Amino acid sequence: MSPDERYRERAQRKKELVDRRIAKATIDRGVVVVNTGNGKGKSSSGFGMLARSLGHGFRCGVVQFIKGSFSTGEEAFFRRFEPDELAYHVMGDGFTWETQDRERDIASAQAAWAAAKAMLADASVDFVLLDELNIALVKEYIDVAVVVAALAARPERQHVVITGRGAPDALIEAADTVTEMRLVKHAFKAGIMAQKGIEL
Amino acid sequence: MSPDERYRERAQRKKELVDRRIAKATIDRGVVVVNTGNGKGKSSSGFGMLARSLGHGFRCGVVQFIKGSFSTGEEAFFRRFEPDELAYHVMGDGFTWETQDRERDIASAQAAWAAAKAMLADASVDFVLLDELNIALVKEYIDVAVVVAALAARPERQHVVITGRGAPDALIEAADTVTEMRLVKHAFKAGIMAQKGIEL
Repeated sequence: MSPDERYRERAQRKKELVDRRIAKATIDRGVVVVNTGNGKGKSSSGFGMLARSLGHGFRCGVVQFIKGSFSTGEEAFFRRFEPDELAYHVMGDGFTWETQDRERDIASAQAAWAAAKAMLADASVDFVLLDELNIALVKEYIDVAVVVAALAARPERQHVVITGRGAPDALIEAADTVTEMRLVKHAFKAGIMAQKGIEL
Repeated sequence: MSPDERYRERAQRKKELVDRRIAKATIDRGVVVVNTGNGKGKSSSGFGMLARSLGHGFRCGVVQFIKGSFSTGEEAFFRRFEPDELAYHVMGDGFTWETQDRERDIASAQAAWAAAKAMLADASVDFVLLDELNIALVKEYIDVAVVVAALAARPERQHVVITGRGAPDALIEAADTVTEMRLVKHAFKAGIMAQKGIEL
């Protein structure tokens, strides 16, 4: 067998494998995606899926649970859209180490959750991004059981993307797709400041 | 010390740590970001950074090295932009297991690389996304040493994001920020078909 024939044969086997897998995936419903871990890409991946959803003409909602983590580039970009395409809630007073007030942090997180809950109960919303929700769950500002119950009761076609470090086990259990963004290296640790278009 | 005082004290220590780290990051230049691994989020994170960059009014370029991996949602979304804001090249004939022709795959990858190289040499381009380039490097359709040299010679302020499984060591070495998107679970393996707004 020539190298070209081998290449074709290998490709053919791979194609059959992929085609079989695609044929097996027959369930068609909304999914819960969780991006967690210490590496870069959790929120930016969520915003990439938001862009995809807007591309399909979906009605989208975003709740930002930690104000300080909010990218000015994203804000400028997504503010171009009409509120009926994209509802945008930036909640909270910043990171907890900026506010230094536990009561205020809890109240901010609960207000953000109220906005999120309304989206999760609204069948006209196709895609919901709950950015940095995991931080509020880790700090127990919001009860993970309440979040899991709201996800289970949401409209069947609705997609939900949840980001942030330290996703609790109960949330991972409830999710359909989970990725751990593992830090291999980061420019910041090499003394490079946060860059517009990358972090900002 | 009351729980509220302890909370404040912990937050204060955290704030000092974060502030010290920010003060140490004084280098201000373009960065190379690599998203690799088997999990979801490599390309969507790249597209999220593209959205951030467009939000800042950057001139952006995208080269898609594997046509089949291209999301119709992203295409519809980013086609809204003018070519002077965003230059978009979708290259290649699809995944290698679809084409089953090694010569054609190499020619497609090289044509995509020619478009990428032109962007990496153009100081008027602020942000470059090379989506699924790693696949072409793993298959040795493009020489990683050639890519690393082009990255090293690029304009100082230019950001480059490279995605795809199996990033070669030489590329990881050359990058500033690297994330491994680790698969924890995926809806597809549970029989759920690829969803618009999430994968498509």
